[in-house]
Amino acid sequence: MQQQKQQTLNTTQSGSVERNKLGVVAKSAGKPNSVNLLDRWLLRQMSALVGHPPFIASLWDGVEYMHQTEQPALAHLKFKDRGSLYWLLLDPELHFGDLYSTGRLEVDGDLLQFLETAYRSMAISLPNSLFSKFAKTWMNRPRANSMHGSKTNIHHHYDLGNKFYELWLDKEAMQYTCAYFPDPDMSIEQAQIAKLHHVCRKLQLKPGDSVVEAGCGWGGLSRFMAKHYGVTVKAYNISHEQIVYARSKALQEGLADRVEYVEDDYRNIEGEYDVFVSVGMLEHVGNRDYKTLGKVVNRCLKPDGRGLVHSIGRNSHCPMNAWIEKRIFPGAYPPSIKEMMDIFEPYDFSVQDVENLRLHYSKTLEHWWQRFEENVDTIRDDFDDTFVRAWRLYLAGSIAAFNTSELQLFQIVFTRAAHNELPWSRAHLYSQD
Amino acid sequence: MQQQKQQTLNTTQSGSVERNKLGVVAKSAGKPNSVNLLDRWLLRQMSALVGHPPFIASLWDGVEYMHQTEQPALAHLKFKDRGSLYWLLLDPELHFGDLYSTGRLEVDGDLLQFLETAYRSMAISLPNSLFSKFAKTWMNRPRANSMHGSKTNIHHHYDLGNKFYELWLDKEAMQYTCAYFPDPDMSIEQAQIAKLHHVCRKLQLKPGDSVVEAGCGWGGLSRFMAKHYGVTVKAYNISHEQIVYARSKALQEGLADRVEYVEDDYRNIEGEYDVFVSVGMLEHVGNRDYKTLGKVVNRCLKPDGRGLVHSIGRNSHCPMNAWIEKRIFPGAYPPSIKEMMDIFEPYDFSVQDVENLRLHYSKTLEHWWQRFEENVDTIRDDFDDTFVRAWRLYLAGSIAAFNTSELQLFQIVFTRAAHNELPWSRAHLYSQD
Repeated sequence: MQQQKQQTLNTTQSGSVERNKLGVVAKSAGKPNSVNLLDRWLLRQMSALVGHPPFIASLWDGVEYMHQTEQPALAHLKFKDRGSLYWLLLDPELHFGDLYSTGRLEVDGDLLQFLETAYRSMAISLPNSLFSKFAKTWMNRPRANSMHGSKTNIHHHYDLGNKFYELWLDKEAMQYTCAYFPDPDMSIEQAQIAKLHHVCRKLQLKPGDSVVEAGCGWGGLSRFMAKHYGVTVKAYNISHEQIVYARSKALQEGLADRVEYVEDDYRNIEGEYDVFVSVGMLEHVGNRDYKTLGKVVNRCLKPDGRGLVHSIGRNSHCPMNAWIEKRIFPGAYPPSIKEMMDIFEPYDFSVQDVENLRLHYSKTLEHWWQRFEENVDTIRDDFDDTFVRAWRLYLAGSIAAFNTSELQLFQIVFTRAAHNELPWSRAHLYSQD
Repeated sequence: MQQQKQQTLNTTQSGSVERNKLGVVAKSAGKPNSVNLLDRWLLRQMSALVGHPPFIASLWDGVEYMHQTEQPALAHLKFKDRGSLYWLLLDPELHFGDLYSTGRLEVDGDLLQFLETAYRSMAISLPNSLFSKFAKTWMNRPRANSMHGSKTNIHHHYDLGNKFYELWLDKEAMQYTCAYFPDPDMSIEQAQIAKLHHVCRKLQLKPGDSVVEAGCGWGGLSRFMAKHYGVTVKAYNISHEQIVYARSKALQEGLADRVEYVEDDYRNIEGEYDVFVSVGMLEHVGNRDYKTLGKVVNRCLKPDGRGLVHSIGRNSHCPMNAWIEKRIFPGAYPPSIKEMMDIFEPYDFSVQDVENLRLHYSKTLEHWWQRFEENVDTIRDDFDDTFVRAWRLYLAGSIAAFNTSELQLFQIVFTRAAHNELPWSRAHLYSQD
């Protein structure tokens, strides 16, 4: 029972019990590899806690456990060792992702259906149980984040390389943010182009406008604006690799005189512009910095200026999921509308339009996941199985989060308060479709 | 100088000085009717404070004062007695309305242009003056409020009678809330009908839906929904006179079996509904009661429910103008979006759409004001000149407030979090126009 000390979950052997944190529990668990009464009781408690979803669960002895229900089992959850059960109970929010990624927790069946069913089941189960932290934190499940970051602590994400993202993002504009599906049968390429037009129309771009973009990713939106709407763009991003890619694309497309990519933080934006736009950066701006962002916008926007912020959000305040925060996007935070107002209200900006595109992100992620799986062999040339499983969980978990409304996608259009050149309706957003 | 004690501004004689509050100031002012150096100095300070707008100002000796400017004078502001100058300085927010209404402060020229210019001028003048309270509170100027109220303390407003409102509201649906002008050349009747359709389309009404309306005014929206969208409606209002009017109209139009008017507070709404709607009531729900309103919505909305709240608002938190609050609408409060989120966030409602119709309210008010003036002789049959001037100021001041972006008009569409039958775009709002 006192095997070698395990420092990380990733290298924990099946059947071993972590000594450092779980010693007390482990001692009561009898022989390391046999399933005892406590193990079974904990599994039953867990099932009850999450509302007895129609899953089969088995422990490391292979024996299946299932709550009596008339529904057929939708998935089979397999705990491969005692540690996987105990780690999950100890901090499900953080450890579910790691246990799944390393294969110590296996889900046989449809991963997305499993996640959505679990989330929905938990949402209606009683919150006041002894294990409430379990449900509460597990519900802070993996969620999507866009990659346009301005924080150095997410650089490790970009180290994955452009090649990886090219395998599963759209081929048109390499957009790692929610697409727009006015027709749900659109391809991901069509929907990303539709998104770019939607953003440009909301901003009422006209030839000659100057635009500043905060967090430009691989620069797809900037080039699109310059090419199709005749504007000049200055686009900021701290990712060297993305900036190099964006500049090279602008040169190829003959847009280098109209689109300037600046390798710098949004807080260092200089100059005055007709338009401010930020698509998928806010998730990486901590909510404490929203007033700073508002200050930057206030500094750089002309008197008749208008702007758009596009971000993952929530129905109400909630911290980021610990696993995503630790393993995928350090510093990420999806705000509620109330929280987002800290950008606009202190500077008397006038919010003109808010659109929630939640289900568009589910669909975007479905496309990404499908391409990811189609290219999984190529991905495995460069990455190990733990990485592949972590990304699979991240994509599937994010679809489930948007489908079950744990996450939202807000596009907010704003203007200076005194700006009176407003369209009389939003019909112009739809007349060209 | 020690004339009779004045209890109200309305009966104060020209040239008199109020003894109770202004005694100290008044003593230094010399003879009651002559203009002295202090009076002139105060007038100059006031002009400087509000940024020297291009107005002529004169005191009660008839001598004109104007700041040197190349612009022609847009209006002539006449202080008829010392009290009007001192009362304005003492609490401009509260007293401007009273002084104008009673004719002790006169504006020769275009009242709307005067108000808008004054507001814009103040907005760019220095805020850190000795008289900052003056500008600060004057900027809390008269603003529009819709009448669908649920508070007993605004009943005096309804005592004015339906006849008064019929003289200047639209003839189609008697809407005392912001109309919708997708075409700015629409008549007020066309624009109110367009507003009703816009609300119904946003709510995706379908035949057989049950709707609850909180604060239904004269019942125009309820009848419209039943007639054109095949729904049943239960509509709440505490105004007896409005309820009687609404029931009579429903009978006339053969809708009494589909529209029920309940003379009760929104907090007493009972039953379950597919749709919750409230147009122009929120202004009268104090912001401390937003969570109560959310609780009511949460109690009465079915799992696939959706709702719409339409309200005057602001770009950021600010209390109601004192004069409007005291003389026109006790208890009224226009919230910021951040404040409005207190209705939705505690109950996990999902905000789907926010539209700002600010300039639509300016245009609505322009139509109302025009009809008001066209019917002013008829109005004078029942009301005195102070009333007419107060309403004129209220309408003009509200137009100015919307034109200068001190006030906004927000329409917010929301659903239960788990509601996934969402349209893939908002094109349906515009395809039928």
